[in-house]
Amino acid sequence: MTDDSSGRPAVQVPEETTVGIIGGGPAGLLLSRLLHRSGIDNVVLESRDRSYVEQRQRAGMLEQTTVDVLRDCGAGARLASEGLVHDGIELRFGGRSRHIDFPTLADGRRVTIYAQTEIVKDLIALQLSGLSDGAPLLFGAEVRSVSGFAPGTEQDGTGAGSPGPQKPELQYTYEGRERVLRCAFVVGCDGFHGVSRNALPVSAAHTYERDYPYSWLGILADAPPACEELIYAHSPRGFALHSMRSPSVSRLYLQVPNGTDPGEWPEERIWDELDARFALGGDSDWRLNRGPVTAKAVLPMRSSVTEPMRHGRLFLAGDAAHIVPPTGAKGLNLAVADVAVLARAFARYHATGDTGALDSYSADRLRRVWRAEHFSYFMTTTLHISPDQSPFDTRLQLAQLERIASSRTAATELAENYAGLALVD
Amino acid sequence: MTDDSSGRPAVQVPEETTVGIIGGGPAGLLLSRLLHRSGIDNVVLESRDRSYVEQRQRAGMLEQTTVDVLRDCGAGARLASEGLVHDGIELRFGGRSRHIDFPTLADGRRVTIYAQTEIVKDLIALQLSGLSDGAPLLFGAEVRSVSGFAPGTEQDGTGAGSPGPQKPELQYTYEGRERVLRCAFVVGCDGFHGVSRNALPVSAAHTYERDYPYSWLGILADAPPACEELIYAHSPRGFALHSMRSPSVSRLYLQVPNGTDPGEWPEERIWDELDARFALGGDSDWRLNRGPVTAKAVLPMRSSVTEPMRHGRLFLAGDAAHIVPPTGAKGLNLAVADVAVLARAFARYHATGDTGALDSYSADRLRRVWRAEHFSYFMTTTLHISPDQSPFDTRLQLAQLERIASSRTAATELAENYAGLALVD
Repeated sequence: MTDDSSGRPAVQVPEETTVGIIGGGPAGLLLSRLLHRSGIDNVVLESRDRSYVEQRQRAGMLEQTTVDVLRDCGAGARLASEGLVHDGIELRFGGRSRHIDFPTLADGRRVTIYAQTEIVKDLIALQLSGLSDGAPLLFGAEVRSVSGFAPGTEQDGTGAGSPGPQKPELQYTYEGRERVLRCAFVVGCDGFHGVSRNALPVSAAHTYERDYPYSWLGILADAPPACEELIYAHSPRGFALHSMRSPSVSRLYLQVPNGTDPGEWPEERIWDELDARFALGGDSDWRLNRGPVTAKAVLPMRSSVTEPMRHGRLFLAGDAAHIVPPTGAKGLNLAVADVAVLARAFARYHATGDTGALDSYSADRLRRVWRAEHFSYFMTTTLHISPDQSPFDTRLQLAQLERIASSRTAATELAENYAGLALVD
Repeated sequence: MTDDSSGRPAVQVPEETTVGIIGGGPAGLLLSRLLHRSGIDNVVLESRDRSYVEQRQRAGMLEQTTVDVLRDCGAGARLASEGLVHDGIELRFGGRSRHIDFPTLADGRRVTIYAQTEIVKDLIALQLSGLSDGAPLLFGAEVRSVSGFAPGTEQDGTGAGSPGPQKPELQYTYEGRERVLRCAFVVGCDGFHGVSRNALPVSAAHTYERDYPYSWLGILADAPPACEELIYAHSPRGFALHSMRSPSVSRLYLQVPNGTDPGEWPEERIWDELDARFALGGDSDWRLNRGPVTAKAVLPMRSSVTEPMRHGRLFLAGDAAHIVPPTGAKGLNLAVADVAVLARAFARYHATGDTGALDSYSADRLRRVWRAEHFSYFMTTTLHISPDQSPFDTRLQLAQLERIASSRTAATELAENYAGLALVD
C-alpha cells in the first residue's frame, strides 16, 4: 500500500488548508494524523526528503502515554510487536548497581524502547497509504516564511487571547516553484532552528536557554545489548548510558568534552572506555558485548524553552518550542504530548467553536515542559562529571544516587518523572 | 541546684579520664551527659566562659530524634514546656504559598522549635547541678594540642581498625596553668576551626568543602511571629526565612551578598525587604509584625565534610567534622545524632570490650552526613538566587518548587529529609 518514493505520485499541491504544519518529524506527522482523524484538513510541509527524515537518529524511549497516543491513532502495530517493554532502569554508581522498578513505584507504568526513526517510518507509511488516505505530506517543501498569524488588534468577538481575525500564510518552495499555502492556523514542528520559532516577534516571546559543559558520543553497534535494561552509569571518568535499538543492536553513549571530534574515538577506545565506566566493583567481570560500530556521532547537550508556545494563530510544538538534554529521554515524549494536547484543542474548536483549549495550550504545556526540563537537568547534573566539578560536588552526586538507591520515596520521584506524567493534570 | 559561676566551686581539676571531650557546645555537653549516664568517666574542656557559650546564637529547629535524645538524657523538661511543636513548613514562591505537612507525609513526624542556646543552658545546668552530679566541665580550659591518638602500627589484638595501644593526651591551659589530661579516647566537639580537626594528619584525612555565593543577614526581633509556621520564601529579590524563638520573638533571615556589612541594613530597610520577599500575590496584604531588632549578624553559607570522622583514638563530632549551610536546619541535628551514636558505641565497648560500633562510627555517620549535606545543598540552591543565575536557572527553581507543591511524592521527599531520618538505618 505504501509508495516508497518521496511523496504520492499524483499529489495535488494544495493552496489552502485548515492547519498548516511545518515539519514532518514525529511531532508534525503525528499531529497531521490526529487532526485527520478528527476531520480537520491539514498539510505537512517537510523541507528534507523522505529517506533523510526516516534515517535521522534520535531518541528511543517511549513513555506509556506516548505509546497510547501512537496506538490510538493507528500507528501502534509494529511498535507493539517490535518495541521492547521495560520495567525500569538500572543506576550504576560507586561500582554498584541498583534497579529502579517503574511498575512498583509509579503505579504500574512501564516504558517502551522503540526508535524514533521507526515511529517516523510508521507514520509516513500510514500517511501515504492509499487505504488510510492521509492528509497531504510534501517532502522537499521548504517553508521560507510565515506571515499573518499575529493576534488581531481589534476584538473579533471570540474573547481575549482568541486566534484573531487574520489568516496566516506559509510561503514555501516545492519542486522548484515558489508557492503559498493559506491556512486557518499554523503549527511549527520544525525544530529549534526552524522558521516557526524565529517567526515570533522578539517582543512577544522569550527563549530561556542553558548549555551543558559536555556532549555525548553516541554509537550504534551490531552487538546484542549486554543486558535487557537501560543502564545509567555515574563514573569518575564521566557518564555512560547503555541502551538498545533491538535484541541485536546496542545503542551506547559516552560523556565527552564539548567540541570532541568523533575521529578521536576509534572503536576500541570507545569499547574500552564504556567498559571502564560501566565496571562493577568486587570480582564482577561484567562486560559489554562488542560488535561493528555502524554509526558514531557527537551530540551537544542543551536546554531551551520558548515562551509562550502560541502567538495568535501560530502554535509551536516539540523541539520548535523546547529542547531537553537527552539524559531524561523526554524530548520525543514532550513532542508527542504537545501535539496530542493540541490536536484535542483543535478538535474541540472544530466541533464547537470553543477556543478555550487552544487558549490554554501554551500555559498547560509549559507547566509540563518545565517539569521535564527540571527532571532532565536533574538527571544530567546528577550523572555527569562537570569539567569544573569539585570533589565535594562528586560526593553530593553520590549522596543523591545513594538516596535514590535506598529510599522508596526518592526512587518513586525518579520513577514517576522518568516513566512520565499523565497527559493532562 | 545550679551553680551560676563559671564552673563548680570546688572542682578537682582531673588529670586522667576515659573520654576527653574538647568543646562544651551542644555536642560536647550532650556527649558528656550520655557517657556519664552509661557510667563512663569523661571531662569536658571548653575554651570560652559559661555566659559566652550560653549566648551563642545558633540553630533552633529540632528533629523528633533530637528531641527524643534530649528527653531521654533528662534534658527535656523545659524543651517540652517551652518548645514550639510544628507540623510542617510553608514554601512561598511565585506569590503563592504551600504548606508541607510533615505528620501526613513523613510517618507522623513533627519538628520542635527550641533555640540551641536554651539547650546549652539546660545541659550546663544539668551538668553542674549538685543533684545530677555530672562529669567535670571546665570553662576557660583551652586545649593547645592533642597527641598520642594515632592508630598503633603494631597489632594490639583488638583487630584491624581498633583504637590501638596508644594513650592520647590533651595539653590545655586552665586558670593560668599548663595542664595535661590523659585519656583513653578523645572526642573533638570543638567546631570547624577547633584544634581537633586540625590535629588530624594531612595524610589521614580529607576535608571536602563548598562555599556558597551568598550569606544570611539574621535578626532577632521583639515581635510576635507573623504566623505559626516557618516560611521558606523564594523571591526574585533573594531568599528569606521566617522563623521564631518564642511566641513573642521573631527570628528572620535575608539572603545578602557575601561580605555584607550589617551596618548597611538599618531596621527599616530590613523590614521593608522582608515584606517584599514574603509578599503574596493578588489582594493579599500579608505583612510581618515589626518590633525592636535585638540582634543582627551576617552568617556565611558553607558546606564542609572531613573524612574519616575517626583517626585512632580521636573522634570528631558535630561542626568539627561537618558544616552545613543553615537552610536545611541540619547542623544541630547532625551533631546530636553524631554524639548519640558515638555514646552508644562507647557504652558497648565499655560493657563488652567490643569495638565494632566504634569502628563503624565514621562510615555510619558519614552516610547520614552526606545525605544531610545533599539535602542542605538542595534546599539552599533551590531557594537562593545566585549572583550568576540565568533566567533559565530561576525557571528551574520554580519548576522544582511547583513539583513539591503539586506532587505528594516530591513533598514527601522534602518532608522525610527535613523532619529527619531515624538515628540508625
